Amino acid sequence: MTEFKRRSAELNDLLCVLNVLTWDARTQMPAGGTAARAHQMATISGVARERLLAPEFEQAAQQVTGNEADTRAAQQALEAVAAMRRVPAALTHDLAVLKSESQVLWAQARSTGNFATFAPALERMVDLNRQLADALGYEDHPYDALLNTYEPGLTVATLLPLFGRLRAHHVELLQAIQDQPQPRSDFLTRQYPAAQQKEFSLAMAQLFGYDTGRGRLDESAHPFEISFTQQDVRITTRFQEHFLPAALFGTLHETGHAMYEQGVHPDLSRSVLTSDLLGLYAVAGASYGTHESQSRLWENRIGRSRAFWDLHYPQLQATFPEQLADVDVTEFHRAVNRVQPSLIRVEADELTYDLHIMLRVELERALIGGELSVQDLPEAWNSRIQSDLGLTVPSDSQGVLQDIHWSSGMFGSFPTYTIGNIMASQFYQAAEQALPELSAHLSAGNYAPLRQWLTEQIYQYGRTFTPHELLIRTTGSGLDPAPYLQYLTNKYSDLYGLKGEITSFSASSL
Amino acid sequence: MTEFKRRSAELNDLLCVLNVLTWDARTQMPAGGTAARAHQMATISGVARERLLAPEFEQAAQQVTGNEADTRAAQQALEAVAAMRRVPAALTHDLAVLKSESQVLWAQARSTGNFATFAPALERMVDLNRQLADALGYEDHPYDALLNTYEPGLTVATLLPLFGRLRAHHVELLQAIQDQPQPRSDFLTRQYPAAQQKEFSLAMAQLFGYDTGRGRLDESAHPFEISFTQQDVRITTRFQEHFLPAALFGTLHETGHAMYEQGVHPDLSRSVLTSDLLGLYAVAGASYGTHESQSRLWENRIGRSRAFWDLHYPQLQATFPEQLADVDVTEFHRAVNRVQPSLIRVEADELTYDLHIMLRVELERALIGGELSVQDLPEAWNSRIQSDLGLTVPSDSQGVLQDIHWSSGMFGSFPTYTIGNIMASQFYQAAEQALPELSAHLSAGNYAPLRQWLTEQIYQYGRTFTPHELLIRTTGSGLDPAPYLQYLTNKYSDLYGLKGEITSFSASSL
Repeated sequence: MTEFKRRSAELNDLLCVLNVLTWDARTQMPAGGTAARAHQMATISGVARERLLAPEFEQAAQQVTGNEADTRAAQQALEAVAAMRRVPAALTHDLAVLKSESQVLWAQARSTGNFATFAPALERMVDLNRQLADALGYEDHPYDALLNTYEPGLTVATLLPLFGRLRAHHVELLQAIQDQPQPRSDFLTRQYPAAQQKEFSLAMAQLFGYDTGRGRLDESAHPFEISFTQQDVRITTRFQEHFLPAALFGTLHETGHAMYEQGVHPDLSRSVLTSDLLGLYAVAGASYGTHESQSRLWENRIGRSRAFWDLHYPQLQATFPEQLADVDVTEFHRAVNRVQPSLIRVEADELTYDLHIMLRVELERALIGGELSVQDLPEAWNSRIQSDLGLTVPSDSQGVLQDIHWSSGMFGSFPTYTIGNIMASQFYQAAEQALPELSAHLSAGNYAPLRQWLTEQIYQYGRTFTPHELLIRTTGSGLDPAPYLQYLTNKYSDLYGLKGEITSFSASSL
Repeated sequence: MTEFKRRSAELNDLLCVLNVLTWDARTQMPAGGTAARAHQMATISGVARERLLAPEFEQAAQQVTGNEADTRAAQQALEAVAAMRRVPAALTHDLAVLKSESQVLWAQARSTGNFATFAPALERMVDLNRQLADALGYEDHPYDALLNTYEPGLTVATLLPLFGRLRAHHVELLQAIQDQPQPRSDFLTRQYPAAQQKEFSLAMAQLFGYDTGRGRLDESAHPFEISFTQQDVRITTRFQEHFLPAALFGTLHETGHAMYEQGVHPDLSRSVLTSDLLGLYAVAGASYGTHESQSRLWENRIGRSRAFWDLHYPQLQATFPEQLADVDVTEFHRAVNRVQPSLIRVEADELTYDLHIMLRVELERALIGGELSVQDLPEAWNSRIQSDLGLTVPSDSQGVLQDIHWSSGMFGSFPTYTIGNIMASQFYQAAEQALPELSAHLSAGNYAPLRQWLTEQIYQYGRTFTPHELLIRTTGSGLDPAPYLQYLTNKYSDLYGLKGEITSFSASSL
């Protein structure tokens, strides 16, 4: 093993250990353990940062020659080292301190609905993130620098027209849907015991191809997927006994993330190509958006499809015979795809979810760009919810205070949710072209061909390629919303009996 | 915070992280995670070793002045650094490699009963441990050097006469017991569902004072206690549905360990005084023997006492109404204290357990001293089992191959089990003298006074004092088997109706 590989392996070990500590804190740790765990994680982060910035690591990376994977790993390492060196230690420290403080203030403000008590911390957070953007560097807009830490290569210049097109389409499609009668969904809120929900959800995850010999499913307050090499990839979900879709689709969503991590080639384990060195996070996925494309693909494209439920609804009905006695598969399929504007992002349906995201992206870009003040933020939020969704925000708790992201210093991560939706449709379209029998396989419950194709095209490479390179290699084009808009239009036209009147899709796809 | 405290805190963080990784591997990790976890643990151990041996740490320790806790911490750090420096890096490496190899060979040999396939690895393990003893240094016997890593200050010169006296007593007491009729114990092997076992065991652990706000109880193949500072102290047990005592007394045993760890003064968290620096293990207990004294005290002195069952047997009966319908408290109490020679140490009763330990100690001392060859080990084992317990070993799987210790390179840890029993009785006797109402408290199910006294006398100090200093401070004398022999003689005389004929006790206590 070369010096570069040895040092990369140790770095990846440290990042995997951070992930173990995170997983334990969110799923197992007794309440009393919080303070000690924070110290332990800070110490491991400190060691990782020290090893990343050690001159010996940089020298070892500079000496790498050989195959493409090795030279790309070395290149990524050198870029991460350079970027981390550009950020002053004092700024990193200030951000870490502010993060823990502002999360507490945010949680308090959210529970009281009093935005003013959180505003000063948020102002400072915006300020520090602008400093971070300046330190990291950018060409056009400071938001680009932050965006780049989640989605390498993405810029405001790309994002704005893309989102503009999506928004026009979504608003028009939503309007058309709202003119139609709504399907019933009363049965989704009946009582569904958690144990059976877990049994069914895990069975579906395993059918998709999630390997529980290298993973496990637990409960946590907020569902997530996390990996410690492809040998150990864990998912969590949250069981709501009176809302069946939460754990069911939540599990399928995390399963998509997990299969990406489990599918990376074992040779890339313990390497830079399964490490986000700048984020000090062990992850095999190429970017946040690429990762999200796989969770959305498996959750929505497969898990909410008619073919999936034609096949598996009898099993769900057998699991919950009383709760679903008066519901047929058509009603169930329509209910879990029902579109209904709501105030809360994490409860949104597939269509309005993007509108929630685009609202946040526009506001955080304006905050970082200095075009919007923290003081004016709630008003900007509320008016946009009114215009896009036709809803009045009754309290900032259900408005601008609902997400933890900004209090955690995460500016630039929101776009990756919608980027993931777009990429999911591009990848899926390419899979359909490559696998002529795909729809027959899926109708027969044979998920292996799709998973294997995704593994060959995407999963196995880990972080070898950028998201853009992956798209080009796999679909022949860069980020393109057309397949996604086509998918949504077709899907909801079928479900709601719309008749080809979505002009914003037709116009923009010319 | 001084430089020494800052560096000590980071070292303790690293050792706590190793403990989290160990706990997860033994209770949660999917099978596939084994190899990656080994790398992660090796990397963290390497970082800890590097930081311990950093010249800056030694210099910082040398500059410490101040109160007794600080200077003792610095002294312990300097001793650990010096000891670790005496061990050649190549030897540490060879031991680590051999450890993983020989554990595999041992497991295979145990399953086939073929000692010869394990013998070469064991020979090399004995050889490396003799080299380790030479490197660490000793005055009289190489075994002293190894013993000292588990029980500071203990030597063969102290141990041999002590164990000689114990053995004479135990063999005679066992003989007297075997002349008496045995109590019934058939009901212990009825079916006891794991869920109710867990509920009852955890309720008792909490009654003793185990704080589940800073801990949790899980299942694992081998029960253990492990801590990540006193804020997070976890225990495990193994539920055998057809043998009630295993999980019940196993939980009370681990509870004793856990209350020791939870009882350390919070000011000692993240310090040398809650770190075994030479063993690279985060632990607040003063030594293996001191730790074992607390698990044995709570398991045996309290948990197997008549007063405990007079109070809690009705609750156990309510938990298992059918299984215990025909059993009264006298029968139950006698059954869980029944003495019966057996081949397997971990299944042994309170009296014969020490005989199992003393056999191992004598053999490992002779191996390390070069007085016994690995080749002659099985025969030496079997003849001793015959003479002490009157049993014939049918296969090495149930004889010399039953324990993992030697294959893991643990020579010198076995004595601490019996040392723990001896210390438990000394501490308990001191508690009785200090707390005139102790027996009334215990009969009323009030365990707080005993736990508080032990916390004040022992737990709060962590590793500030050596085991010998703790004994002197608390009981006024050094290691003394008399209270333990007195306890056993009284206990079994009552249970088996013996009449004052244990001469080896009377003679030796003059």
